[in-house]
Amino acid sequence: MLLKNRTNELKNLVDNADNVLLSKEECYCYAEDALNFTDNSKIPDAVVFVTSIEDVRRVVKYANNHNIPVITRGAGTNMVGACVCTEGGIILNFSKMNKILEIDAESMTARVEAGVVLGDLKTEAEKFGLFFPPDPSNFRVSTVGGAVAQSSGGALSFKYGTIKDYVLSLKVVTANGDLVTFGAETTKDSVGYHFAQLMVGSEGTLGIVVEATLRLIPKPQAKNVIVAYFNDVKSAVHAVNKITSEGISPSAIEFMDKNAIITVEEYAHCKFKTVYECLIMVEIDGDTHTVDSQIERALPILEKSGAAKVYVPPSKDDYERVWKARRTSYAAASRLAPDVISDDIIVPRKNLAKMIERCNEISKKYNLRMCIAGHIGDGNLHPQVVLNSSDEVEFQNYMNAKSEMYSSAIMLNGTISAEHGVGLEKRAYLDKVADKKSIEYMKAVKRVFDPNNILNPDKIFKLDKE
Amino acid sequence: MLLKNRTNELKNLVDNADNVLLSKEECYCYAEDALNFTDNSKIPDAVVFVTSIEDVRRVVKYANNHNIPVITRGAGTNMVGACVCTEGGIILNFSKMNKILEIDAESMTARVEAGVVLGDLKTEAEKFGLFFPPDPSNFRVSTVGGAVAQSSGGALSFKYGTIKDYVLSLKVVTANGDLVTFGAETTKDSVGYHFAQLMVGSEGTLGIVVEATLRLIPKPQAKNVIVAYFNDVKSAVHAVNKITSEGISPSAIEFMDKNAIITVEEYAHCKFKTVYECLIMVEIDGDTHTVDSQIERALPILEKSGAAKVYVPPSKDDYERVWKARRTSYAAASRLAPDVISDDIIVPRKNLAKMIERCNEISKKYNLRMCIAGHIGDGNLHPQVVLNSSDEVEFQNYMNAKSEMYSSAIMLNGTISAEHGVGLEKRAYLDKVADKKSIEYMKAVKRVFDPNNILNPDKIFKLDKE
Repeated sequence: MLLKNRTNELKNLVDNADNVLLSKEECYCYAEDALNFTDNSKIPDAVVFVTSIEDVRRVVKYANNHNIPVITRGAGTNMVGACVCTEGGIILNFSKMNKILEIDAESMTARVEAGVVLGDLKTEAEKFGLFFPPDPSNFRVSTVGGAVAQSSGGALSFKYGTIKDYVLSLKVVTANGDLVTFGAETTKDSVGYHFAQLMVGSEGTLGIVVEATLRLIPKPQAKNVIVAYFNDVKSAVHAVNKITSEGISPSAIEFMDKNAIITVEEYAHCKFKTVYECLIMVEIDGDTHTVDSQIERALPILEKSGAAKVYVPPSKDDYERVWKARRTSYAAASRLAPDVISDDIIVPRKNLAKMIERCNEISKKYNLRMCIAGHIGDGNLHPQVVLNSSDEVEFQNYMNAKSEMYSSAIMLNGTISAEHGVGLEKRAYLDKVADKKSIEYMKAVKRVFDPNNILNPDKIFKLDKE
Repeated sequence: MLLKNRTNELKNLVDNADNVLLSKEECYCYAEDALNFTDNSKIPDAVVFVTSIEDVRRVVKYANNHNIPVITRGAGTNMVGACVCTEGGIILNFSKMNKILEIDAESMTARVEAGVVLGDLKTEAEKFGLFFPPDPSNFRVSTVGGAVAQSSGGALSFKYGTIKDYVLSLKVVTANGDLVTFGAETTKDSVGYHFAQLMVGSEGTLGIVVEATLRLIPKPQAKNVIVAYFNDVKSAVHAVNKITSEGISPSAIEFMDKNAIITVEEYAHCKFKTVYECLIMVEIDGDTHTVDSQIERALPILEKSGAAKVYVPPSKDDYERVWKARRTSYAAASRLAPDVISDDIIVPRKNLAKMIERCNEISKKYNLRMCIAGHIGDGNLHPQVVLNSSDEVEFQNYMNAKSEMYSSAIMLNGTISAEHGVGLEKRAYLDKVADKKSIEYMKAVKRVFDPNNILNPDKIFKLDKE
């Protein structure tokens, strides 16, 4: 344990000593995130519930002086082991820094602490007629800081982009405990290097985001969705292409394969039809006229493209039911076996049918149960593998399957993470997808921002000892 | 002249020796960009019209070995002296690397050489029912590489963001002549540090963008605009707030003050009414129903907010006339005096009325003629100062006015560039707006990517000699 003789010092550093957890039992709860594989090296030495920027600064400064790893954590919902320890260290838990500091309705911006839950920000913005689009499936629990760290997206990325498109300015505590502001509070900024954008997706390895100013947009008045069932995946992908090339601009285009549909239906009883090969969901938002007219135009396109059945929810309740079902696909899959691993691959949409085919071949080859859901409009798939990870053979099969899945994605001009990040889980594959020189620049930039390698060390890549 | 004894070597490095200009007369033409202030130190030693990535690599490698500055140039339309020399060097002119390499309609992406003109890409994308939104006023001549370097926006930024929201992947020649790819070809990417985003707005100081993969979106079927005249600026800003808080989602919200209206009307005879204090343009796009219904809803909001007169173009020709007029505001102003300097400041929208008031006070105080146009939805103003810069008194007045304008923008929580960049022109003000520590990180990151400081040196900031 790195901190063994220094526990009291840590308690003295924060506003409230009760916010420091030091017992092994308490710390054990923070040895995992949603990736779910624990080993002893991952148990933190301390967990600090920070309540102010000054808390963060003092702890980080201390950690930097003593070469102690600092791992930032929001809701711990990430799927790649991005917020667990590798060799002990301090977990900075942001769940108490969850204040929405300001909604500036006139300027259409929100200023929030890093621990604010995405869903809470959405709700608050709506009170002002405004909209904060990023919506990872777990948005009711996951935090702004986590979404920034992992570059989160969600179903609405198709129309509205990912969190990076909403980050205007970030207050960041640097590795030596300084506080620095990157970006501007304005909706556009072209002054110097875009470090706020560099922080997005850097997984807490370059600095610790403590506060964010985010862009909001006018809230669409209405929305509805078409559920279209297909008897084959190729027709479904083709239908998506037809939709987007004929002037229809969906807010989301989602996908579920037969396994996913069945799994969700058994869990959520949402009236999904389980006889078809797959479904797509085409969501339209805007004012009432737009929603009605675009759905009217989209329906015949879907039917001509081979949809076997289409369904438009007749009421708000039915609409909610459809989306709730789509969003429970991870929870539904997790009932099937001790572990479920939701992966995250993306390919250019023209290669998507081939990628889905490859996933099916791979799951068959390794005898793994896989449900595929995803954001088909973006070419982004979340193959969910359900397994018992303590079964060594099954686990090895999964590891092989994963490796083949990533190779296929890369061969199809895609990449191994669209919105989950790299963390520990995908680190071994980084050099398969990123340019060697690009990785060298990553390491050099890491050294600029964090010379002692205390900020979330070993995530994304492992630094060579100098 | 840095290159004096090495001219032939340069000719041997490129595919076609005729693409190297070496005479002082020829090079003189590249001593300026749209900022328009020339001095002798800015005359390049050579201008190379690159025609291939290999051309770029060989010239940059050579320059790096001999410590010669390399300045990348597209159409030279930037307004901050971002693509001129400070102490000689080689201008890499990308105007011949202007091929649209691929429009992948299914994946909704475009792959282009850096010298492709934005307007050409727009036109090509439209053939596939797709849309590339970034639209700086000069989009008919300015290039993708330049837009990436300066982080360009335009009128449509309000709804569609700036070029950064469309950059997926960049091929970049590094300072030592290597070729590296940053980002992925996919619409989302969460693998490692977002260096493609870091390149955006870095003004050619970190690497030379030679190729870009850009996101396209479904093309809206229809659009129209409301021109609303007001008798006072405050009511106009208030009207914008009302529009965006009531579920209307314009694609652009533009502004022109009385001086701008009069100047444009005298030049373009576009039937603008010159008796009002200002106008705003509210553009709606989408399908026909959306455009009609949103305009119908917006009109009473504008009238209730105090619009003295509203006008909706009844035909496509009339629509084009209105936009052409708005886009000529720079050309129109340039008729009034030997020089026109279009500035670029941005504040949170709640402070916009105050910022416009400050601009008027400042122009009065320094006896300068100023037309204010801008993207009011974003809080982004382009105050255009018309002057004779060779008149020493007038020029000094301008410099003082500029300084006061920037101070005011900063005091109102804004910044000194929204979409033009820093270049040489705003360099002296960088430390007024960016955190001191942030500037230190900029310099350190610059040294990582360009250890010999050959890439567009002295832009954004000046590196201290080590």
